[in-house]
Amino acid sequence: MIEPADTSAQRPHYRHLEQARAQVIELLSRQAVERELLQRQGTDTTRRQDVVSQLVERQHQAALEARLASFHPADIAFVLESLEPDARDLAWSLVRADRRGAVLLETSDNVRRALVANMAPEDIAAVVAPLDSDDIADLVSSLPEEVGQQVVARLDNADQAEVRSMLSFPEGSVGALMDMEFISVREDASLEAVQRLLRRLKTLPPHTSEIFVVDRSNRLQGLLSLSRLVLGDPETPVSAEMTRDVVFFFTDDRMRDAVDAFERYDLVSAPVVNLHDQVVGRLTVDDVVDEMRERANSEGLRQVGLSDEQDLFAPVLKSARARWPWLGINLVTAFMASRVIGAFEPIIEVLVALAALMPIVASIGGNSGNQSAALVIRGLALNQLGSHQLWRMLEKELRIAAFNGLLCGLILGIATIVLYHDLALAAVITVALVLNLLTASLIGVCAPVLLHRFGRDPVMGSSIILTATTDSMGFFYFLGLAALFLV
Amino acid sequence: MIEPADTSAQRPHYRHLEQARAQVIELLSRQAVERELLQRQGTDTTRRQDVVSQLVERQHQAALEARLASFHPADIAFVLESLEPDARDLAWSLVRADRRGAVLLETSDNVRRALVANMAPEDIAAVVAPLDSDDIADLVSSLPEEVGQQVVARLDNADQAEVRSMLSFPEGSVGALMDMEFISVREDASLEAVQRLLRRLKTLPPHTSEIFVVDRSNRLQGLLSLSRLVLGDPETPVSAEMTRDVVFFFTDDRMRDAVDAFERYDLVSAPVVNLHDQVVGRLTVDDVVDEMRERANSEGLRQVGLSDEQDLFAPVLKSARARWPWLGINLVTAFMASRVIGAFEPIIEVLVALAALMPIVASIGGNSGNQSAALVIRGLALNQLGSHQLWRMLEKELRIAAFNGLLCGLILGIATIVLYHDLALAAVITVALVLNLLTASLIGVCAPVLLHRFGRDPVMGSSIILTATTDSMGFFYFLGLAALFLV
Repeated sequence: MIEPADTSAQRPHYRHLEQARAQVIELLSRQAVERELLQRQGTDTTRRQDVVSQLVERQHQAALEARLASFHPADIAFVLESLEPDARDLAWSLVRADRRGAVLLETSDNVRRALVANMAPEDIAAVVAPLDSDDIADLVSSLPEEVGQQVVARLDNADQAEVRSMLSFPEGSVGALMDMEFISVREDASLEAVQRLLRRLKTLPPHTSEIFVVDRSNRLQGLLSLSRLVLGDPETPVSAEMTRDVVFFFTDDRMRDAVDAFERYDLVSAPVVNLHDQVVGRLTVDDVVDEMRERANSEGLRQVGLSDEQDLFAPVLKSARARWPWLGINLVTAFMASRVIGAFEPIIEVLVALAALMPIVASIGGNSGNQSAALVIRGLALNQLGSHQLWRMLEKELRIAAFNGLLCGLILGIATIVLYHDLALAAVITVALVLNLLTASLIGVCAPVLLHRFGRDPVMGSSIILTATTDSMGFFYFLGLAALFLV
Repeated sequence: MIEPADTSAQRPHYRHLEQARAQVIELLSRQAVERELLQRQGTDTTRRQDVVSQLVERQHQAALEARLASFHPADIAFVLESLEPDARDLAWSLVRADRRGAVLLETSDNVRRALVANMAPEDIAAVVAPLDSDDIADLVSSLPEEVGQQVVARLDNADQAEVRSMLSFPEGSVGALMDMEFISVREDASLEAVQRLLRRLKTLPPHTSEIFVVDRSNRLQGLLSLSRLVLGDPETPVSAEMTRDVVFFFTDDRMRDAVDAFERYDLVSAPVVNLHDQVVGRLTVDDVVDEMRERANSEGLRQVGLSDEQDLFAPVLKSARARWPWLGINLVTAFMASRVIGAFEPIIEVLVALAALMPIVASIGGNSGNQSAALVIRGLALNQLGSHQLWRMLEKELRIAAFNGLLCGLILGIATIVLYHDLALAAVITVALVLNLLTASLIGVCAPVLLHRFGRDPVMGSSIILTATTDSMGFFYFLGLAALFLV
């Protein structure tokens, strides 16, 4: 029932890998269920059945183990991410011990925590020991504080020192994600000498597309690309083939800025230096790609007040609790809006049509405001919004709001006349809509900008602030005008 | 007033580049304004003033031209993106002709169109001619159909053929974005022979971290990494140092799948083959990074029915029109919700408190539904949602909705009692909220999945469908229950 592993190991097209993964996920979930059933039957199963089913299970597992062994760690991680807790533990038990470290590196933080949750610190230490110190630091930083400490304490001294130094960099900084393995040479060396040096190393660190050129006190002088090394005349000195015009990073640069630089200058790897301009590490494009992916995936969640920590299979209560803050805020804002309406209950009593029409004013305001906000948030992300551009944009958004507000307002006014044969009411809803759209675009532009200025996440806060305003003000404009002119 | 260009050219930290860019943007916008003023003054300025100001302007421009010349094309593109039309044209006129092609490559489609809008096809052809054919194809595909045709017609025949073949690949496919420059060798060649071959080439294509190994009919056999080439013994044959286990792509693979593969397997470049397994091109990580960035930037916009085509400085009317479809849809859905309320006007007349409370039920429903949708959309993006996981998730979301609905409902109920001293009304709002949250989580899970199944963009459609439902149903549950039990 499982095609032999080697067929998928031999030059697989990733699509086949996807199928293979799906198949394994399917099998594992099924087995986890079967196993559970077995346990449920417990004693009332006759010895024979038990033995048979255990045999079958063991065969399945051997096959699965072989299959998993043929997977790239990232694919194993994908399988683990896609499984429910029981099946996930079963799968984890089938991963060869010597690959567990590599697999852990590829999992999301929450699944990682779940996997190591019932491992002893020394076991974790044993699993991660083979990894590079920067990868160990990466793993440790995602574990609960005390567990992390215990794990580090069990590493050998050299690793301990490096890991501790990596952990000392603030989260989201280049230093925290940089690679500590890099190759550096002097500019007076000949290309041939460099080649000899490299040959002695047997292998190069992954993504080594350039070698760093430093002076005797390890200060960055330039880069020698592997291609120049290959193409250049062996006799020529490094200085003749190296580039001095280098994009480099400080350990305390923000990773998000580094991502922009990698994208803008099409980098594959870049040197990381300390404040004395000395090379201390290397940032590689794979870290950048992971960072981009993480940010992209979390954006949708942050908009609705959720963090990327969500485990698809976390227990219900835990997940429910994760949504309280957001629901709480919305409960408050919705309640405020409701109180605005409450203040006008007498008018509604007289003219009940207001009750039916008011939500339209509020909701269209919210929607058009969200469009402005989305444009601003994108502008901020691309940091295209200098103060000058900002004013221009605000002005433009207000014009658009006025224009579209008038348009929607007229359509709405006509509908009102058709429904309620009330010209004054139609006029009121038109004016109210224009006012609310103007408010919406004002808040839609300012909310993200202010959140950004104060170092908060515009993606997360903007829509709450916006809808809170457009709802309350929408009701206020519409009912207020009605109170003035209709009753 | 401008620091000499070379200081920023010499090993710049990208932060300094950002400042330099900001400075240039500032200067250009200011000049564009000044120039406009000059033109406004027109004849009534005395000859002298005119001459002076022109002299000053020319000096400024010389300085700016020098400064721009020291920028990376991507930085020049950034400057252009950040400027308003007048200043943008001024800046474009200061970009050296031989760099314009490289700059165009880095701009967004809409700015690119604006820049070439008043260029003759032959001028465009002259500007892009120096670029690689795949880059030319990339540029041409973003131009208006007929302009593109004319440009291609003016290229020399070799380029024409290649560009046409590139353009034949469907948009969003690997073929359309692949690189046509790559180096391939036979596996029986010795590493030394390969090095000799490379030396003859003088330079390697950008991001050449591996050389492709092919058989005599150009079928992909494996990869030889530059590092193996450098480290290996010159005498050994390629076959001994190459990897046969290669991640490769077909020209018609979707770019988004390729992005996943690059991320999962930490690739820098990968071979692209045709259906006969023959190498026809190369996909490099910089294209992947650009693709990721584009998708990330457009996501926020797609959620509110806008495309990434938005030019910050497009004329108001054009931008206003771009928002009509979305506003139109929201007008319709809001109107539907309003009609639901309209149906219950008699009850509201009797119990006006309903009017004040009903928006709470609707809006909290929408918010909690959006949380479910965000989780599902992320799951789809990571393709973690097999049918099994999907059912599990739906079940879980419903539980959460029931739990949180009851919680919010009770809080809301208490508030109602406090405000209106009406137990029955409190009970009604509690039940209505639970029902609406259950509906919200059902739609929140199903809407994105169905949109995804039918090949639509879940990011774009989900929130409309969701809020349309939660508003109408929220009002219906609440007012309907009220009609049954309160009056």
